[in-house]
Amino acid sequence: MISKSKLKYIKSLQIKKIRKQEGLFLVEGAKSVVELLTSDYLPDSLFLTREFIDCYQSILQEKGVPYTLCTENELNEAGSFVNNNAALAIVSMKENSLLLPSGDEYMLLLDDIKDPGNLGTMLRTADWYGIEKVICSENTAEFYNPKVISATMGSFTRAKIYYCDLAEYLGAYKTHVYGARLEGENVHQVAFRKGGMLLIGNESSGIHPRLLPFIDEHLRIPGFGKAESLNAAIATAILCDNVRRNLNT
Amino acid sequence: MISKSKLKYIKSLQIKKIRKQEGLFLVEGAKSVVELLTSDYLPDSLFLTREFIDCYQSILQEKGVPYTLCTENELNEAGSFVNNNAALAIVSMKENSLLLPSGDEYMLLLDDIKDPGNLGTMLRTADWYGIEKVICSENTAEFYNPKVISATMGSFTRAKIYYCDLAEYLGAYKTHVYGARLEGENVHQVAFRKGGMLLIGNESSGIHPRLLPFIDEHLRIPGFGKAESLNAAIATAILCDNVRRNLNT
Repeated sequence: MISKSKLKYIKSLQIKKIRKQEGLFLVEGAKSVVELLTSDYLPDSLFLTREFIDCYQSILQEKGVPYTLCTENELNEAGSFVNNNAALAIVSMKENSLLLPSGDEYMLLLDDIKDPGNLGTMLRTADWYGIEKVICSENTAEFYNPKVISATMGSFTRAKIYYCDLAEYLGAYKTHVYGARLEGENVHQVAFRKGGMLLIGNESSGIHPRLLPFIDEHLRIPGFGKAESLNAAIATAILCDNVRRNLNT
Repeated sequence: MISKSKLKYIKSLQIKKIRKQEGLFLVEGAKSVVELLTSDYLPDSLFLTREFIDCYQSILQEKGVPYTLCTENELNEAGSFVNNNAALAIVSMKENSLLLPSGDEYMLLLDDIKDPGNLGTMLRTADWYGIEKVICSENTAEFYNPKVISATMGSFTRAKIYYCDLAEYLGAYKTHVYGARLEGENVHQVAFRKGGMLLIGNESSGIHPRLLPFIDEHLRIPGFGKAESLNAAIATAILCDNVRRNLNT
């Protein structure tokens, strides 16, 4: 059973300010909690239904974290989502540590991605395409937002994220920068380098003008219909797919 | 000014049952309403801020639809979204008319896409790639849901949608069917036909087993990392991009 005070505390972690203050965030739903338990994240507390416990007994024993048995109804009340029916965890945040590029890899650079669902989907997609490091501008949605964590479908456990001033980062560490633009070279015809940075702009306004001088190649996803633009997470996925297709790795 | 009774009526159209009963739906936000005004949809009523009217005077005159002047605050109260700050329309639905494939085109077939944001994003993406016709299973999210309309970013005005039993549709009208699967031929290596049907399955359970016999080619998006799957709208976009890239049209 989840005590009243614990319930209040869980709910408070849905607020960014409280998350930051406490250094803790929420992971909700069976799929995400299972991925959490097999990751290097440290759960502070776990709230699990009998069904979840029976199903994942060996993983729980291996991790050795104590848990509170609770009901589906309690989880629905505690969590941010309507259908969080099996598991919830309170987890310690990781430090915001500098990530450096290494020669032959691709990184994502996200300039003010505002929608948590988009950010989560981008991290899931990056994980699919084997892109581990993601550099986010300070105004990008917060990684620990429950909507981001949920949209990653477990990929949050593998994502390496660093929040910083992108202009400063690019000034210090840039490799070959590909910018996703509405005008530029047709991405279907680009010969990609072995490694580089894919720079993705804000959902409405695109890449900030002060970052444009850092771009080495402007890439355009060719359109064949009448839509004016693509969703930012969709555009990111198409760039990732074209990189891998082109490099055949 | 929006009268109290009108406000109540607008709010009621956020409910699917009422929409169906009235044959009307809501279009919210400046971008969507502008696209609406240049489309063949018939607005029943328009609620616009002074700023919007000043900005789009010529389009409004051309369409000749009367409008109600209102404030941002009124629109925020009436609409489904927090930041609907410029325009709202009540619009007549179109009939659910049969769409037939024609030889050289691609169509999307959506099998129980549940998330309105995913459906809207798929329609926006289809519009980008010049795919006009979308056939949806009866359990796919409702096209006229405000979240779908919003996520299309105006592409709802161009989408041709038909809801039906997909097995019956495929039985009667199928052309060459490509199924998006976790196992199958690598989409990077497929030689696509001039026309065909891209069949996309439900977000959690994929393509329903009873539709599998209709698939001619099973396509897999190659993964290079550890994510188990891609978001359904992302997978759809990657298939569309690979089709266009391969056909070079």
